Amino acid sequence: MNPLTIIKIGGKLLDHKTTLHDTITAFAKIDRPKILVHGGGKRASEFSQKLGVKTQMINGRRITDEATLEIATMVYAGLINKQLVSLLQKMNCNAIGFSGADGNLIRSQKRPVQEVDFGFVGDVEQVNTSLLVTLLKQGIVPVFCAITHDGNGQLLNTNADTIAATLATALSNYFKVSLKFCFEKEGVLADPTDETSVFRDLSKKDYAFYQENGIISDGMIPKLDNAFTAKKSNVHKVVICGPNGILEQKGTEIWG
Amino acid sequence: MNPLTIIKIGGKLLDHKTTLHDTITAFAKIDRPKILVHGGGKRASEFSQKLGVKTQMINGRRITDEATLEIATMVYAGLINKQLVSLLQKMNCNAIGFSGADGNLIRSQKRPVQEVDFGFVGDVEQVNTSLLVTLLKQGIVPVFCAITHDGNGQLLNTNADTIAATLATALSNYFKVSLKFCFEKEGVLADPTDETSVFRDLSKKDYAFYQENGIISDGMIPKLDNAFTAKKSNVHKVVICGPNGILEQKGTEIWG
Repeated sequence: MNPLTIIKIGGKLLDHKTTLHDTITAFAKIDRPKILVHGGGKRASEFSQKLGVKTQMINGRRITDEATLEIATMVYAGLINKQLVSLLQKMNCNAIGFSGADGNLIRSQKRPVQEVDFGFVGDVEQVNTSLLVTLLKQGIVPVFCAITHDGNGQLLNTNADTIAATLATALSNYFKVSLKFCFEKEGVLADPTDETSVFRDLSKKDYAFYQENGIISDGMIPKLDNAFTAKKSNVHKVVICGPNGILEQKGTEIWG
Repeated sequence: MNPLTIIKIGGKLLDHKTTLHDTITAFAKIDRPKILVHGGGKRASEFSQKLGVKTQMINGRRITDEATLEIATMVYAGLINKQLVSLLQKMNCNAIGFSGADGNLIRSQKRPVQEVDFGFVGDVEQVNTSLLVTLLKQGIVPVFCAITHDGNGQLLNTNADTIAATLATALSNYFKVSLKFCFEKEGVLADPTDETSVFRDLSKKDYAFYQENGIISDGMIPKLDNAFTAKKSNVHKVVICGPNGILEQKGTEIWG
């Protein structure tokens, strides 16, 4: 099978112009089929604040009401996505920006209301792999934002790590996929205060142990859950890394 | 040559939910290759106001500064484009939303500063017809917003009528193109206060005469200039019409 690299960028990488530029430059240099998935960074919160739209939180989890969904669609699918595409085009990388609605590429289901009503949040249901494979074969570089749709006219806010993991899993039937979750640290840290304490690899067993002992916590957990799910679902290689890990063998490799 | 329909929607069509829905329903029913081009409507001005970004005008013409370009990118390429795509998907129409940066589909040049510096406004230079033809042959329905790029990392605000006319011209080498500029009136009116006074057709000579006599004026002029340019450039059929003109033979047909 031919190789395919899927890079997810998020967190503070998107908020600093120079770091973002270096990250995109590295991505553009990958000389094989590739996909970029991006989160939203601070911009959406900044616009929400300016527009007087308050972020609703329930039990520490963010709720996506209609106004928040509009802002997410504008900032993720509009501003950030098109700025990245235009930057990639400058680097001779034939990028096309996508939401999940475009070409019905990622269909999701509005998260069912249980204890919490998360609002317009979508859990991924289906990837239109045949169209995606066709586009990749034509040399197109898809750039996905974290907006999907339900197939019934409703856009939905979706976690960018989950989108990256789902795309990697769906495309593993067609390509030997390397999935890299790229953020502002060099990998998963054994000691959050020590940037050099990067785990070279992480097994499911180790992960459970470190989680129990509070060594791995907070924001790393959903990212690692997505990483382990992808690895378990036949994705060839899964890595958590910084921008340096895009072209080099760096960061934390995930073992199933 | 195979037929291709290009529909440009703008003005008040975008601002009224029911009218927009009817327009998109008609568009979805066109049973041949098709392209949708949309303007911005009121939404961009609404967001500008909410964000405290003032519209700069020089000699009655709008200037696109950086803040205005950001808002245009968010509203046109993000909010409106993805809402239209998601609605079309619901209607089983395999739409993909594009800015000109995506796939380098429309490259433009920042308008040179002469008497007025229009800011981040782009005049169309080149259409990537080969990619567009490939996508159309795959059954994709492109949905273009009025944002282009200069190939050097800069997004640019571009007139949606001009984008529609340029796409129609570029694709006339491959398809028998019908280009319809669709807005809230039923066509070009002989008397702006009488909705039934629609010209059935308009020649270049008639247009010059009506313009001199002030019968056709204001907002219709740039639209008609684009329409005549397209007609002159070998576009098979050019029509100015209302939503009813999408599926029926209605509106004002342009003669070269």
